[in-house]
Amino acid sequence: MVYGNLGETSGTGVGFTRDPAIGDKTFYGEFLLNAQGEDVVSGVRTPAHITELERIMPDVYNQLRDITTRLEKHYRDVQDFEFTIQDGKLYMLQTRNAKRTGLAAVRVALQMVEEGLITKEEAIFRVDPNQLYDFLVPRLKEKGVKVEVLAKGLPASPGAAVGQIVFTADEAVAKAGHGGKNPVILVRAETTPEDIHGMEVAKGILTSRGGMTSHAAVVTRGMGKCCVAGAGDIEVNEKSRVMRVKGQEFKEGDWISLDGTTGRVIKGKLETIPPKADDPELLTFMKWAEPFRKLGVRANADIPRDAEQARAFGAEGIGLCRTEHMFFGEKKLPHMRAMILANTEKDRRAALKKLLPLQRSDFAGVFRAMDGFPVTIRTLDPPLHEFLPRREDLMVEIAVLEATKPKASKLKELRTLLRRVEELHEFNPMLGHRGCRLGITYPEITEMQARAIFEAACDVAKAGVKVLPEVMIPLTATLKEMANQAAIVNRVAEEVFKEKGRKVDYLVGTMIELPRAALVADEIAKEAQFFSFGTNDLTQTTFGFSRDDVNKVLPTYIAEGILKQDPFAVLDQEGVGQLVKMATERGRKTRPTLKVGICGEHGGEPSSVEFCHKVGLNYVSCSPFRVLTARLAAAQAAASDKLKVEGGRTK
Amino acid sequence: MVYGNLGETSGTGVGFTRDPAIGDKTFYGEFLLNAQGEDVVSGVRTPAHITELERIMPDVYNQLRDITTRLEKHYRDVQDFEFTIQDGKLYMLQTRNAKRTGLAAVRVALQMVEEGLITKEEAIFRVDPNQLYDFLVPRLKEKGVKVEVLAKGLPASPGAAVGQIVFTADEAVAKAGHGGKNPVILVRAETTPEDIHGMEVAKGILTSRGGMTSHAAVVTRGMGKCCVAGAGDIEVNEKSRVMRVKGQEFKEGDWISLDGTTGRVIKGKLETIPPKADDPELLTFMKWAEPFRKLGVRANADIPRDAEQARAFGAEGIGLCRTEHMFFGEKKLPHMRAMILANTEKDRRAALKKLLPLQRSDFAGVFRAMDGFPVTIRTLDPPLHEFLPRREDLMVEIAVLEATKPKASKLKELRTLLRRVEELHEFNPMLGHRGCRLGITYPEITEMQARAIFEAACDVAKAGVKVLPEVMIPLTATLKEMANQAAIVNRVAEEVFKEKGRKVDYLVGTMIELPRAALVADEIAKEAQFFSFGTNDLTQTTFGFSRDDVNKVLPTYIAEGILKQDPFAVLDQEGVGQLVKMATERGRKTRPTLKVGICGEHGGEPSSVEFCHKVGLNYVSCSPFRVLTARLAAAQAAASDKLKVEGGRTK
Repeated sequence: MVYGNLGETSGTGVGFTRDPAIGDKTFYGEFLLNAQGEDVVSGVRTPAHITELERIMPDVYNQLRDITTRLEKHYRDVQDFEFTIQDGKLYMLQTRNAKRTGLAAVRVALQMVEEGLITKEEAIFRVDPNQLYDFLVPRLKEKGVKVEVLAKGLPASPGAAVGQIVFTADEAVAKAGHGGKNPVILVRAETTPEDIHGMEVAKGILTSRGGMTSHAAVVTRGMGKCCVAGAGDIEVNEKSRVMRVKGQEFKEGDWISLDGTTGRVIKGKLETIPPKADDPELLTFMKWAEPFRKLGVRANADIPRDAEQARAFGAEGIGLCRTEHMFFGEKKLPHMRAMILANTEKDRRAALKKLLPLQRSDFAGVFRAMDGFPVTIRTLDPPLHEFLPRREDLMVEIAVLEATKPKASKLKELRTLLRRVEELHEFNPMLGHRGCRLGITYPEITEMQARAIFEAACDVAKAGVKVLPEVMIPLTATLKEMANQAAIVNRVAEEVFKEKGRKVDYLVGTMIELPRAALVADEIAKEAQFFSFGTNDLTQTTFGFSRDDVNKVLPTYIAEGILKQDPFAVLDQEGVGQLVKMATERGRKTRPTLKVGICGEHGGEPSSVEFCHKVGLNYVSCSPFRVLTARLAAAQAAASDKLKVEGGRTK
Repeated sequence: MVYGNLGETSGTGVGFTRDPAIGDKTFYGEFLLNAQGEDVVSGVRTPAHITELERIMPDVYNQLRDITTRLEKHYRDVQDFEFTIQDGKLYMLQTRNAKRTGLAAVRVALQMVEEGLITKEEAIFRVDPNQLYDFLVPRLKEKGVKVEVLAKGLPASPGAAVGQIVFTADEAVAKAGHGGKNPVILVRAETTPEDIHGMEVAKGILTSRGGMTSHAAVVTRGMGKCCVAGAGDIEVNEKSRVMRVKGQEFKEGDWISLDGTTGRVIKGKLETIPPKADDPELLTFMKWAEPFRKLGVRANADIPRDAEQARAFGAEGIGLCRTEHMFFGEKKLPHMRAMILANTEKDRRAALKKLLPLQRSDFAGVFRAMDGFPVTIRTLDPPLHEFLPRREDLMVEIAVLEATKPKASKLKELRTLLRRVEELHEFNPMLGHRGCRLGITYPEITEMQARAIFEAACDVAKAGVKVLPEVMIPLTATLKEMANQAAIVNRVAEEVFKEKGRKVDYLVGTMIELPRAALVADEIAKEAQFFSFGTNDLTQTTFGFSRDDVNKVLPTYIAEGILKQDPFAVLDQEGVGQLVKMATERGRKTRPTLKVGICGEHGGEPSSVEFCHKVGLNYVSCSPFRVLTARLAAAQAAASDKLKVEGGRTK
């Protein structure tokens, strides 16, 4: 037993051999004279900076510096230590490898290679791939500021955002002003595709419902925008424009700060620290890691801007370009609705004709951004009712009009709309009329999309850009579905090539996102030239968990130890992974050259990337803001194989 | 070329060597003098009975009898033949094995064994197992009646029903009167669990939406009640109490007739022919088939009456007793709702306490009915919102009140209810908070159900009945879920046995109804003493098809040849079947004594039963009215193995 509270020549403290926040090689710590460890921790007394020790007890300070330097050399890593001084004599209580930010991890890894403490190969493992995020997103400046945490939600999309509360997408647009000059935070119970325009201008998104793969979470991660989702303690009343939490009421215009990295919702207006993706130390570090990597890394991007961003982060192609997001724009939604509301194929074709040039120009932009790299474009996937007003809203509007203005002329139109919405209504939309089922029941949709893809490809190729389109059919479960859609795509490709007098190389493949597809992958590979695992949907169906509803069950499941983690965030290797492995093997048995990738949320999660490497996939595809993480995780997985380094990771 | 239209010594006709409707050994046919085949088919002239030929051309008639008798002996089956007479000379044009009803098939099989034409073993294959239905349900009497078919829906539950139209369950009860003395047909867009009381009193159910496994279809098949589902041409307006079809309007009280065997909806009031399940010929036939059977046949039954019915049809146990149906009764729903609306575990337990004696007495009744046979009881499965009013109805009611009577005292109560309904609302209920997820988040529900089961078992055993309860945990995907629920069941069992001073043998097992469960079946079998495949849900998740929504896709899929049949009606052996086989093998690897059954709709479908036999399942379980079919299908599968009879089936 040693005592730090025996008078003014005694004391206790904690420290780090290098700065754990930014990685500077500065000795960093705090201490208290005449105190025990509890006094430092409890915060009753304010500790002094470690340099103060140098002034008061220079011998002890030098001894401490000496010991901790030796400890760092011995463990070959930054140390986080505790010490006590009893009557002028130094006692070390504990030392361990220090936790650090991503910024610090990279800098320290570089320093230690330079110092000869570790090799470059070891350095690769000193950074948790997830932490590379720190270079891409702003952070909250919390030092010296009073922080009142209002609630904790899920860290759905990392980074920080500070702004004034708005409750609807339209308000967000109105309030944000031109170029988004006024920072706003969009607060909603949950977001839907109709909120996209508001999400685009908001600095951050806060929802009271939904999980790590809810609409808000997935879309914001794609945008690299901060999001705290499923903050259940917050009650959002969009109608009366009020957010209630901890007995306090927040109105439109009130300031809040979000920390998407930890899931915290903070009262008031904090400052942010900007990101630095082109940090030279980061670039050096990645240059060391990259040569190991075998797995390709692509990005999921729907629009040219995201594709450019992805390429800047090192993406080697687009693994998933979702065409439906293209239909939510102001210009396109009316045509899309006209298409859905059409009663005949002829009317549907007329509406599709108006969508064709709009899609074509979107595709051309993405192709241009990815010059020389493949672009995987998925044909229309979501159920059509997602493009129409919500059924319950229509029901309410009609009922209220009937009760108050039964002669309103609007009623007839609303009733017609509701009838179509009712026809499209589904009990379980996730398991409904979507994916290739749309393209099979309405072949003219697949035709229009194929035409837009190939016309864009020919036009862009003519301008000297190298285009490699890969058309991806979603939600197949049988060989015949694949054959049906591939036949349409191939026919339209031939037509366009003939019209344009130019051919481009392309592939037609499918998403494997249903258990049945994995089970009959050998059959499907007869028609599919590539597979891409849609592990979000595959997890939903394999587990029987709706990702929008799983939040009702997940907290209990984690607390009870039934699940270790959210299977939508971290690939369930035991179950879903079995299907991934099985489908890859069976598919390649039929077609040895089959290209196989993954484009679910898991494509950017390190342990899942490692799994993809082990199973022998060709590439992973993830949100642009996950590309760096995926690149490092893939490099680590391959380096692990090569170096047989065991337990070499920091942490 | 022969001509039947060369004058009064020429003619043409068709016939059967035995009556194809009831199987009597009477020569049966029709002919037209001075006519060609088209004239008989077109119906322009009314043909004469074949006996007329005997009077006019006795030689030709005798020759025809002689030839067709020889043909029947040659083909060893009833013949359906066509002939032409040219100038007094008989020409046979065609002969083939005749299609026949189930009644006829059984009778003919018996006759032919007696006549020495076929062996008993062959006779077993002369009846399509599906056709045994004919013995269990009434038929429409159509002979000599004008039949106007209004629409064709899905033959969701066979049999016939004739009655007056009603549009709500309450009306059905009111109109049907005491003991259901007035026949009513419940017509709805779709049915929900809240319609059960109306479905119980109705003679038949007609819906305009939903597939072969929609709520209406599944429930009516369970009840052995006629149902035509998804008759898309019919427009049902429940609010204005009108059904529109073919430009005609039908109101409450109008008569219609349903043919659930063919899916026809017929205008007006036809007569019905009653069923005969205890037909002595049927019993003889089954006595021949039964000794071959290796697969056990159980029934799905939720209430004592159904269990008794199932036993009468030869069920050797209950393979699925759904406890949720027990909560929809008038007495129980209020307590169930109180349980769901409870804010604390204490309040929830108080409500559950009121449900306990009601469940106990239900279980006791089922145990008594199945004396000596196992009863598999599934713990609560459906999402809780199924027990509450519909969200959209509440939204409409509140909005209308707000617009018209904003001070109505009811508003506060409705808003509170809506808040809870919103909390429970799910985007994809099928993939939501249900199955064992309920029992894990609310362990007190599983506790109450286990207590009701074991208290009932002890009480009934005390009265000398042999009880074999099997507690089945729904929707497991992981070993830990199974372990969690099994621990509760086993603990409560011990408690009850101690209190009652009596033990009963029981098993705890699980439904395998998620792909993940099949994939990790070796793990789950560590805790599960039996598996029962819930192939309805397993098909939903494996295929990614919601059975309530599949009707939007299925017609196109069948028409395009993408699917050969509805995978909810006929087990998808290639995909879902792979999982069934895999789970059986993996489960038995861990636990060689594992009892494995199937309790989805497929348990009563002949080709699926054959598959279950081949895969080595212990039993199939199906609706009581499917038990006969399953018994014969299982016998045929085993006899096929044994006799290596190839192509021996009628048809």
